Amino acid sequence: MNTSILSVPVQRLGQPAQDLVAVEEPLQIRIGEQDIAITMRTPGHDRELAAGFLFSEGLIQGPEQIQSITCNELGTVTVVLRPGVTIDCGARNFYMTSSCGVCGKASIDSLTEVLKQRERAADDSTVSASILFSLPEKLRAAQAIFEHTGGLHAAGLFDLEGNLLAIREDVGRHNAVDKLIGGAFLEKRLPLRGDILLLSGRISFELVQKAVMAGIPIIAAVGAPSSLAIQTALRFGVTLAGFVRNGRGNIYAGAERIV
Amino acid sequence: MNTSILSVPVQRLGQPAQDLVAVEEPLQIRIGEQDIAITMRTPGHDRELAAGFLFSEGLIQGPEQIQSITCNELGTVTVVLRPGVTIDCGARNFYMTSSCGVCGKASIDSLTEVLKQRERAADDSTVSASILFSLPEKLRAAQAIFEHTGGLHAAGLFDLEGNLLAIREDVGRHNAVDKLIGGAFLEKRLPLRGDILLLSGRISFELVQKAVMAGIPIIAAVGAPSSLAIQTALRFGVTLAGFVRNGRGNIYAGAERIV
Repeated sequence: MNTSILSVPVQRLGQPAQDLVAVEEPLQIRIGEQDIAITMRTPGHDRELAAGFLFSEGLIQGPEQIQSITCNELGTVTVVLRPGVTIDCGARNFYMTSSCGVCGKASIDSLTEVLKQRERAADDSTVSASILFSLPEKLRAAQAIFEHTGGLHAAGLFDLEGNLLAIREDVGRHNAVDKLIGGAFLEKRLPLRGDILLLSGRISFELVQKAVMAGIPIIAAVGAPSSLAIQTALRFGVTLAGFVRNGRGNIYAGAERIV
Repeated sequence: MNTSILSVPVQRLGQPAQDLVAVEEPLQIRIGEQDIAITMRTPGHDRELAAGFLFSEGLIQGPEQIQSITCNELGTVTVVLRPGVTIDCGARNFYMTSSCGVCGKASIDSLTEVLKQRERAADDSTVSASILFSLPEKLRAAQAIFEHTGGLHAAGLFDLEGNLLAIREDVGRHNAVDKLIGGAFLEKRLPLRGDILLLSGRISFELVQKAVMAGIPIIAAVGAPSSLAIQTALRFGVTLAGFVRNGRGNIYAGAERIV
């Protein structure tokens, strides 16, 4: 039992019982004195979540800009920047529900604004289809919490030999990815060239956007991609596999990396 | 084939093929000249989506406030209010990814602000467990698109006898619910007392919030609820069933409505 799951009363076949559910709680992300975002997240790895969110939103560029990240019991994580480091939040406020990625933009032009910082991936990583299609089983084996609640999304980072490097879970799939990317960011491991991002669910635009920001060349997901996820992967040279399950999968973009 | 799905090239077992994927495209929601929100949605029922979003965010209260809702080909839906009707958007900008609900708030206090308009449901509707637990099959039978892509969330409204009243699909589960609620809003059928909301996926806080705004007394979902979804249902007297599948389910709140 940890803070990711909560035991609650439930009626099952008319009988009282107990069930474990995924915790969803708001996290306030602040830079210094300024409220930047709220995300509805599963508690745990809040520092990584904040760092990953601020990085994948283009608000911060490197760990050397950060002096400290502290969490309090009230659900606030405060990022203090080093003296002299300033950021431009514009007029954006972010409020993210448990399945939302990026908020605070009100025009379609601003949607892809953050991606202008990135160019098409020049990453000649390759992975064998058999390794790529075996990753969901490895993720699931590592997903202790998921087995309890069925309520958490998982995201994993793997190397090209299929070794699991890190796994994060959350009620929000964007949070799970932010936690992964934020962890690598704080460990100064970005860009994640040669890494594979595996997602337990579907792939939308926002998740491809986060992978592009982190320099990840290959994304695989157990679920379906959306049309815009595919278009974004094609545009940025990212390999995108969907419906990866039972040793099979579909390649929607970047098939040249699958050998 | 409609605009909800798109045929794309895919590599399957190394062979080129075609696959159908769910369309994800930005929709700009405007009130008059003012940009209010962008949502990443599956095209279709955009007028209902805009109305449902504005209502469940507490920005508009009734269809009589609306003079017209028009869509253009560029992905903008414009809501014109009747002369004399004004709304307070505050400083909020909304940007919703395909799985995000409500954006533009930057403090935890503001999270439940919109729900202050609502009181605990005084709705003595009841439903038999056997009817409630049979709804996912009916939803799935009606979900023509889902069978094609596996990429769409569905939301359905049922009456207490288990008759399907309406179904909407979207890459974003919040959009599917906004489309349902917006349709009922425009038809002047709110509040939806005596209706059951069925969701094809998991239940987070935001979806319970939308149901509370629309006066829906019973929510059932194929997936798991989050802790905050349960807490919100308990607070507002909403019946909440999760893991509803194969004729069974768990009741997390409001068990008195299940007979």
